[in-house]
Amino acid sequence: MSLSISIAQINPIVGSFKHNTQLILDAIQQAKADKADAVLFPELVLTGYPPEDLLFRPAFLLKVEAALDDIAVAAIDITVILGAPLRQRYQDKNKLFNMACVLRDGKIIHKYAKQYLPNYRVFDEKRYFSKGTENAIIEIAGHKIGLLICEDIWKKSPAENARVTGAEALFVLNASPFRAGKSAERLKLLAQRSSENQLPIVYANLQGAQDELVFDGESLVFDAAGQLIFQAPTFESGVFNVNLPFKKSTKAIQPRIQNKEECIYNALVLGVRDYVNKNGFPGVMLGLSGGIDSALTLAIAVDALGAKNVEAIMMPFHYTAEISKIDAAQQAKTQGVNYREIAIESIFNSFMDALSKEFDGLQRDVTEENIQARSRGVLLMAMSNKLGKMLLATGNKSEMAMGYATLYGDMAGGYAPLKDVFKTTVYDLARYRNSLADGEIIPDRVITRPPSAELAPDQKDEDSLPPYDILDAVLRMFIEEFQSVDDIVAQGYERETVARVANLVLLNEYKRRQSAPGVRITKRAFGKDRRYPITSHYRWHL
Amino acid sequence: MSLSISIAQINPIVGSFKHNTQLILDAIQQAKADKADAVLFPELVLTGYPPEDLLFRPAFLLKVEAALDDIAVAAIDITVILGAPLRQRYQDKNKLFNMACVLRDGKIIHKYAKQYLPNYRVFDEKRYFSKGTENAIIEIAGHKIGLLICEDIWKKSPAENARVTGAEALFVLNASPFRAGKSAERLKLLAQRSSENQLPIVYANLQGAQDELVFDGESLVFDAAGQLIFQAPTFESGVFNVNLPFKKSTKAIQPRIQNKEECIYNALVLGVRDYVNKNGFPGVMLGLSGGIDSALTLAIAVDALGAKNVEAIMMPFHYTAEISKIDAAQQAKTQGVNYREIAIESIFNSFMDALSKEFDGLQRDVTEENIQARSRGVLLMAMSNKLGKMLLATGNKSEMAMGYATLYGDMAGGYAPLKDVFKTTVYDLARYRNSLADGEIIPDRVITRPPSAELAPDQKDEDSLPPYDILDAVLRMFIEEFQSVDDIVAQGYERETVARVANLVLLNEYKRRQSAPGVRITKRAFGKDRRYPITSHYRWHL
Repeated sequence: MSLSISIAQINPIVGSFKHNTQLILDAIQQAKADKADAVLFPELVLTGYPPEDLLFRPAFLLKVEAALDDIAVAAIDITVILGAPLRQRYQDKNKLFNMACVLRDGKIIHKYAKQYLPNYRVFDEKRYFSKGTENAIIEIAGHKIGLLICEDIWKKSPAENARVTGAEALFVLNASPFRAGKSAERLKLLAQRSSENQLPIVYANLQGAQDELVFDGESLVFDAAGQLIFQAPTFESGVFNVNLPFKKSTKAIQPRIQNKEECIYNALVLGVRDYVNKNGFPGVMLGLSGGIDSALTLAIAVDALGAKNVEAIMMPFHYTAEISKIDAAQQAKTQGVNYREIAIESIFNSFMDALSKEFDGLQRDVTEENIQARSRGVLLMAMSNKLGKMLLATGNKSEMAMGYATLYGDMAGGYAPLKDVFKTTVYDLARYRNSLADGEIIPDRVITRPPSAELAPDQKDEDSLPPYDILDAVLRMFIEEFQSVDDIVAQGYERETVARVANLVLLNEYKRRQSAPGVRITKRAFGKDRRYPITSHYRWHL
Repeated sequence: MSLSISIAQINPIVGSFKHNTQLILDAIQQAKADKADAVLFPELVLTGYPPEDLLFRPAFLLKVEAALDDIAVAAIDITVILGAPLRQRYQDKNKLFNMACVLRDGKIIHKYAKQYLPNYRVFDEKRYFSKGTENAIIEIAGHKIGLLICEDIWKKSPAENARVTGAEALFVLNASPFRAGKSAERLKLLAQRSSENQLPIVYANLQGAQDELVFDGESLVFDAAGQLIFQAPTFESGVFNVNLPFKKSTKAIQPRIQNKEECIYNALVLGVRDYVNKNGFPGVMLGLSGGIDSALTLAIAVDALGAKNVEAIMMPFHYTAEISKIDAAQQAKTQGVNYREIAIESIFNSFMDALSKEFDGLQRDVTEENIQARSRGVLLMAMSNKLGKMLLATGNKSEMAMGYATLYGDMAGGYAPLKDVFKTTVYDLARYRNSLADGEIIPDRVITRPPSAELAPDQKDEDSLPPYDILDAVLRMFIEEFQSVDDIVAQGYERETVARVANLVLLNEYKRRQSAPGVRITKRAFGKDRRYPITSHYRWHL
């Protein structure tokens, strides 16, 4: 006694009803070919997730309704369950709900409204949706199935209520974004929810990237005893057919757990690929400096888009070490990407000439370093404008945190793949990438030499910043865990360092507010996940 | 039979417990000198509004508690009511509430938790706060007073419940941000709430600017018949003592209504002043082009900060008309600001030389225009870095909407005063400013000549954009009212124009995401108020 269920782990594009409808129709087709009783799609699959303020537009919601009608026609001899935002009368008002729509016999036969609306971290669902108040039990091939949407399954009561009202299994529609460690949390939670209710669970997750968010797929099926019986691929689309047993299965599997570097690297690749492709760019370019950040960014870009769609530009100045040029050229050659050198000497000099009267008698300071970074920014943007390829910014999270980056200079770009990657993780990822079968892509010297912005003679990052292992540890506690300076000092870190780091993180909010989006991989990424005031006197020296 | 109430319409700084505590203590002092029975402060006055994710930091909340203890000491012979975020046990959990704290006899004697938490437009209160569930009635000099916080008074039931449970008057703590037309809405709502419950209302509003938001003050008092009996100044701090009658007053006043241009202009001035001063900049600089946007921005900056704290820089190129230089110099002279000219010809040429090989054989296009704008951006940022004055971006809302601006070029800057001001309103404000007593500040020709970016020969804005009166009308309907292309066309606008405008607004989200913050003055400003995906295929041609 089992049900044949297809899980459609697909990659919609926000706002593309044509593309998304086609993906959904194709998946229904495949599920029918696999003789599935039902096909389960992720949360808000019809619009993509999150559609944000597009949800306020009546014309957008009309398109949702029209697309649902188109899809319903295909729901013959199969039950289709998919997520969409839908308006419904509720207590005399037209309200918007995050719905699971059940389509069968060419029409919508049931709608379930999400009961728990996340409004924390990157989520703003209470901005858009009203809360559902009723359980849903639908019947498929004689079996009673409880429907839940994402956050619902993280709470105890909706699953319990479904069981009490007769559900024999739970189907969960999800748009659950990736971060390092999330997969293990999901596995644990679902096993628990299944075993405490003695119900099998089919968990369908979205796949693909949307601005800052990567949805890692990895849809799951558990039997009634909390045993994993199916785990879909991570970071890949597909329609997967599973026989759902209603009791303890004899076919339990061990979960596949990616190591940390592998899953982060893959998330970054997917983030770049989908941002570039979904926004219609013919490729990307980046400034390759001979340093580790741009080296790793190049490797990610090539893995995401292919060498022929990536260009690297080295823009030397007289502080650029010879080995920087050698290493940059070597990586470009190894990776097979178009590589150019454009010196910024004459450009820098033209700025200094134009400013000579204004700067007369004033000390050299960070201004001159910024002019170098901004000359490179203008050159890269000019190349990007002329050739149509999008510029990638190469800064990492440690720099973004400390403001160790130049607005409109090295921060220029449409997307910042390493924005949420601490510098120590950048090294881990570079070593991970070099360990793969295709060998040493990033020259070893790029990984081993001391990092430098090369904006002043003999400059090293550690002249301005604490050593990265200390810095990143402090940043993680301060940013991700909300620890205070006292808390962090109590763990053995120097007070002066910790206070300086904390103050710089708070002070540099203005820079981050003008930065490009990047892939979220941690518990607390800069972007929608972390909303700080720019104007704020909250510091440790006050 | 009346109460003596002081309203403390003060201007806190987010996160500055020292500054805010001092402001609060000073206001208590003044209220005591005025023999007030009670002093009413605005919502979250202790932290400033909105403190955003600082509210997640336990150390921040400890500082709130410590500051409250300091303030309580001064609450002797007077009742102090002030807003602060406070943790409290609730159903076995420690939760955070948006509280009104009542201090008397040196201690906190009562706490009221806001019941309606706005989570729309610029507000994210459900991200931070739990919902209060209980009414509060406190006694002051023998009178029963119901406490409400901001959103509570916009709903019918909290005031009604307060009345039913014996309140003789309502005290409302607010952090109600300005937009054009908001003042009239508040006056109407409060008059209605007062008359339908036959209760006097004391409405204390915050004053001052915080990033995108301006709080306009204009605290209000109504008698039990819904008649206005006190209206505090707009855009100004102060502690105002009012005798609150408990029945119909014979001293009703007519509300002061600022005209639209006056209140918008004052909001922009306050926004710039507070952003610059609260962030500790010694002044501002801006690129003065001879066009209307930078001319108005200069006038605002001088009114906000004084001429000696403002510098204007004209950066001519060979497309710059002679009259642009004349008009820019004239305004700078009239306004008494430091004025410089720095030509960008040699800088532009050095970029073109460096790119000559790469651009060989390729057509001139928008790239070369962007290089001009970005050369200016780098020059202005260099001056800003060297002299410490913050750069103001001068773009308006019509440009921001259409992407008619250069990232890292004219979009460079720490604050963008006109970001939410449509071009047609820019003209209205320029004429308004010139109509004031100190005469024609903005040269008349700047107002009357056709607008041009002067990035190509004989360029006019209307070569690329619809006429501004049409453009702004379409933008307003599309952005602020969520109207569809069909809706707008039905009102007599050309379909091709409307569809092009709608598509460009949606397409240019990526530019706006990297723009500086600016003062919100409309119903739907770019920024926290309007959250659109960058990656989105929602267009009208699809």
